[in-house]
Amino acid sequence: MGIEIERKFLVIGENWRAEADDGSRIRQAYLANGGGVSIRVRRADDHAWITVKGERDGIARPEFEYEIPCADADEMLTSLCAGPILEKVRYRVMRGALVWEIDVFEGVASGLVIAEVELASIDQSLDRPEWIGDEVTHDRRYRNAAIARDGPPCEAVGPARSQAAS
Amino acid sequence: MGIEIERKFLVIGENWRAEADDGSRIRQAYLANGGGVSIRVRRADDHAWITVKGERDGIARPEFEYEIPCADADEMLTSLCAGPILEKVRYRVMRGALVWEIDVFEGVASGLVIAEVELASIDQSLDRPEWIGDEVTHDRRYRNAAIARDGPPCEAVGPARSQAAS
Repeated sequence: MGIEIERKFLVIGENWRAEADDGSRIRQAYLANGGGVSIRVRRADDHAWITVKGERDGIARPEFEYEIPCADADEMLTSLCAGPILEKVRYRVMRGALVWEIDVFEGVASGLVIAEVELASIDQSLDRPEWIGDEVTHDRRYRNAAIARDGPPCEAVGPARSQAAS
Repeated sequence: MGIEIERKFLVIGENWRAEADDGSRIRQAYLANGGGVSIRVRRADDHAWITVKGERDGIARPEFEYEIPCADADEMLTSLCAGPILEKVRYRVMRGALVWEIDVFEGVASGLVIAEVELASIDQSLDRPEWIGDEVTHDRRYRNAAIARDGPPCEAVGPARSQAAS
């Protein structure tokens, strides 16, 4: 068991790409999502996981994650998960002791780019890279489960945003 | 991944006990249950599992089960599962190549006794022991998820049943 302590931000422009790794392709969907609990199936390259997340308390959230066979994940994604499969490429950028994960969404949420950073404690200080925009940690619309259900928030993928980011 | 092929019966009397093992104590509850998918957390003695089950097709049902740390299971049962925790003692009786599992419920479903047998194929023939009563495979009220949500069916635990069983 763990507590996931995570902050989430919009991303400005493309300059982060110069520092990023090659990225890994992620496909994920939810077996269930509601009543304060989400159960996610995720496939990333040659690995897969089932992840149970509880209700968020500020920026912390209980999380239980187990690696599972890829074939199981593929079958659950195809036949048991509700809603569309979220597809994204996750890039990593190291900055000091922090790993920034930049998710570039495809498919149903195409155009959305989100940066996440996992922290060791709730009050850990954060040097924001220059390509980090508004914080959306507490905006429920930016949760992956909400994006899978409702699509991406308009202001994050609309024409105004594309212009600002280019 | 697997397909669980299972039939379920009421139990008559107590004669099965003479052939049964010492039993193992099970505590289980559901992280989610609905939309054709249930996600169960089960603790049995020193082991624990998370199990995803799909929609039943006749007596077969897709099932994905993963062993997890007991401490994780205890935490999820206490803090993340919806509904009451089902408590039961599961006894095993060997009859030929078949293993009959007899669940004696406690707590919210006290008085209910159910026998389950897992089969290798849908059309496998079955010699019913003399203490096996009515089949309830297709009675949704006897699913563990339904018992956790609604309690045990009255006719299985009411005074008439107790008398018949004694």
